[in-house]
Amino acid sequence: MYLSKLFIPITKDLPAEAKIKSHQLMLRTGMIKQSSAGIYSWLPLGFKVMKKIEQIVREEQNSIGAQEMLMPTIQSSEIWKESGRYDDYGEEMLRIKDRQGREILYGPTNEELITDVFRSSVKSYKSLPQLLYHIQWKFRDEIRPRFGVMRCKEFYMKDAYSFDVSDEEAKKSYNKMFFSYLKTFNRLGLKAIPMAADTGPIGGDLSHEFIILAETGESQIYADKKIFEIDLNKYEFEDSSLGQMRKDFTDIYAVTDEKYNEKKFNESVDKKDQIKTKGIEVGHIFYFGDKYSKPMSCTIDDKSGKKISVKMGSYGIGVSRLVGAIIEAKYNNNVMKWPKSVSPFDVVIIPSFNKNNKENLIKAEKVYHDLKKQNIDVLLDDLDENMSNKFKKHDLIGIPYQIIIGSKSEGDRFEFKELNSESAILSLEDIKSKLKN
Amino acid sequence: MYLSKLFIPITKDLPAEAKIKSHQLMLRTGMIKQSSAGIYSWLPLGFKVMKKIEQIVREEQNSIGAQEMLMPTIQSSEIWKESGRYDDYGEEMLRIKDRQGREILYGPTNEELITDVFRSSVKSYKSLPQLLYHIQWKFRDEIRPRFGVMRCKEFYMKDAYSFDVSDEEAKKSYNKMFFSYLKTFNRLGLKAIPMAADTGPIGGDLSHEFIILAETGESQIYADKKIFEIDLNKYEFEDSSLGQMRKDFTDIYAVTDEKYNEKKFNESVDKKDQIKTKGIEVGHIFYFGDKYSKPMSCTIDDKSGKKISVKMGSYGIGVSRLVGAIIEAKYNNNVMKWPKSVSPFDVVIIPSFNKNNKENLIKAEKVYHDLKKQNIDVLLDDLDENMSNKFKKHDLIGIPYQIIIGSKSEGDRFEFKELNSESAILSLEDIKSKLKN
Repeated sequence: MYLSKLFIPITKDLPAEAKIKSHQLMLRTGMIKQSSAGIYSWLPLGFKVMKKIEQIVREEQNSIGAQEMLMPTIQSSEIWKESGRYDDYGEEMLRIKDRQGREILYGPTNEELITDVFRSSVKSYKSLPQLLYHIQWKFRDEIRPRFGVMRCKEFYMKDAYSFDVSDEEAKKSYNKMFFSYLKTFNRLGLKAIPMAADTGPIGGDLSHEFIILAETGESQIYADKKIFEIDLNKYEFEDSSLGQMRKDFTDIYAVTDEKYNEKKFNESVDKKDQIKTKGIEVGHIFYFGDKYSKPMSCTIDDKSGKKISVKMGSYGIGVSRLVGAIIEAKYNNNVMKWPKSVSPFDVVIIPSFNKNNKENLIKAEKVYHDLKKQNIDVLLDDLDENMSNKFKKHDLIGIPYQIIIGSKSEGDRFEFKELNSESAILSLEDIKSKLKN
Repeated sequence: MYLSKLFIPITKDLPAEAKIKSHQLMLRTGMIKQSSAGIYSWLPLGFKVMKKIEQIVREEQNSIGAQEMLMPTIQSSEIWKESGRYDDYGEEMLRIKDRQGREILYGPTNEELITDVFRSSVKSYKSLPQLLYHIQWKFRDEIRPRFGVMRCKEFYMKDAYSFDVSDEEAKKSYNKMFFSYLKTFNRLGLKAIPMAADTGPIGGDLSHEFIILAETGESQIYADKKIFEIDLNKYEFEDSSLGQMRKDFTDIYAVTDEKYNEKKFNESVDKKDQIKTKGIEVGHIFYFGDKYSKPMSCTIDDKSGKKISVKMGSYGIGVSRLVGAIIEAKYNNNVMKWPKSVSPFDVVIIPSFNKNNKENLIKAEKVYHDLKKQNIDVLLDDLDENMSNKFKKHDLIGIPYQIIIGSKSEGDRFEFKELNSESAILSLEDIKSKLKN
């Protein structure tokens, strides 16, 4: 893609309400545009990042055997009355009357709807366990939406649901998701800490939040830094190993301020290992047994032919929120550097040229076509601007690798730079193999 | 995927309201489940087909240089008041009041919102032409939703928008989309006829519908069968060639009953070439100049520095509707055969076995793992059912290729069948190469 063709409205003036760095950066680089309070359009740059995050989330869900489906955004109020949450949910639920006066709503979450799908489909223990998920827009009518995509009204979320015959089996499903979440965040270039959490309006008695460290986070966190030393690769995808994994993680002290106890923190964590910082929630998992299946009569026949309420859990990852969360974690000292796995482009070519001398632009185009042929997703900055402005701009756009075609390039050797590192003069072949790694 | 693990609730009893074959088939094979009138959940089988259609639509949009973005489902009423459509649109628009009493709505289409995005982003003719698209859920509050996903309330649609400096330039964008649409439908295994159409509530004076032939279609169509003889490959992606293409297509008689004139039909089409049948609309494109840009003050500076209203068109493909439309076109004599490009699986293995003799199931599993290694997406029917039931079921599920492991298979030679064709006994190597073609 040529930058001059890319629909990327870069803004220099920031609106007053953009108070945190992800919100600022996303507006400045034209990743999003607000359409009304708390509701955004995703422009091509932001869209590409979000889609890459979505795909990683999807692959890691599929890899534990979860099946993708898609529930609608609009739900009937009936099922929420069955579960008892219709009155409880409060004003954050966007309640709607259709043209015939029927009460409908824009789903803020999908426990009721998936239970409704499941109860009409599955009748026997033989079909269990089952893991289903979808990635769909949700809506919460926040009274004070803020922080850009971090706390907005319309947001994109992966929510999965597990169905099991017993508490014991259900905990195995829970552990699979726990594992999948840690792998997902690793692939996104994030260090996420699982922390025991309150269950809130979802309900149940077992729940973990996954929190990434970021100084601008909304939650105060207290953790033992040993939690970062656990190597996920040592566990196998098998029930007892995954049980051990959850135990290893949850044995280490890590809590948000909700559950913080100073005495316990000091007793159980060495001073040198104590982390006190802020964090951002990027995932939340719940086990709630028959909280929905019981009132909604979602039963199956067990081995003995007895009807039992199916045991359920739910598992959320905020896909659109992660775009902001990654920025909060990775945007420092005025330089944004996207993790390779979710960068909007693999590399940007920055030629130095002007109206009167386009030699470097022509070289750049040659390199561009060469890289494209290798299926490298490359952005060519073909705008007639001075190099210092270009560099400032690309520090914000955040593509991790740059090929700079200016005074330092000689023949087919070019300046190659990884953001936040020194540049080197490399042949195109070396550059290609670095990019392909 | 093992069929016993696939979340595919196959229903034998059809609800009375399922009157057309796509609706019946989608319910019977568990592709969808109705959650309330006109609103469906997409279960894994239906979801896979829809995602494949979406991906083909996406690739063909990208190939003409359109850029993907994503607008929200919920829109403010303000922009619709600016364009003048808020009062005109009628009761099909789902109008909502948020918790603060503000008028919002669930977007039935996005001309206003994209105009709002564009006017704040682009200021100069230098950034044009521009093609932007998104694939997003829409809502129309149909008073009588029917025909399953063909006329439902919440539907998935690709809508693109073009932005140009003049009518003449805009028509070039229109022709690009025209070309892209024909290529898209070809890849979906459909023969689509472009037909001059009325513009309805979108407005403008140039519009084409893309209609596929299906006896159960909602529109009566009258066409010259020569329109199927035009070879799309002879045109190049270049303005004058695309202009010629549109002329070649539109010179041939093809209309819906709205525009039908018997005398003209008989005069311009040889009796032997006359097609009179029914069809289903799968795409609709519009050119409407400044209908939205003018009232919404979406202006750019032209070459002379004068502010002019940008010239716009819009281009829709019903992605969820296409799932039903393909079934209407391809489901005949109780056999559904998905086009290879959108089939939920590449091939199904059907072993003959029972509780007491699982030899063929074990063979089938070996073949299954072998094909999986070649990245062939394979379904294994591991259910203990008699073969006649299995065949009936797979006639509905519609995977185009079957490997039947029963009495006719010998050693590593298996019965291989393409739906609606005779089977042959082939080696696994031959089967693989047939599937990979």
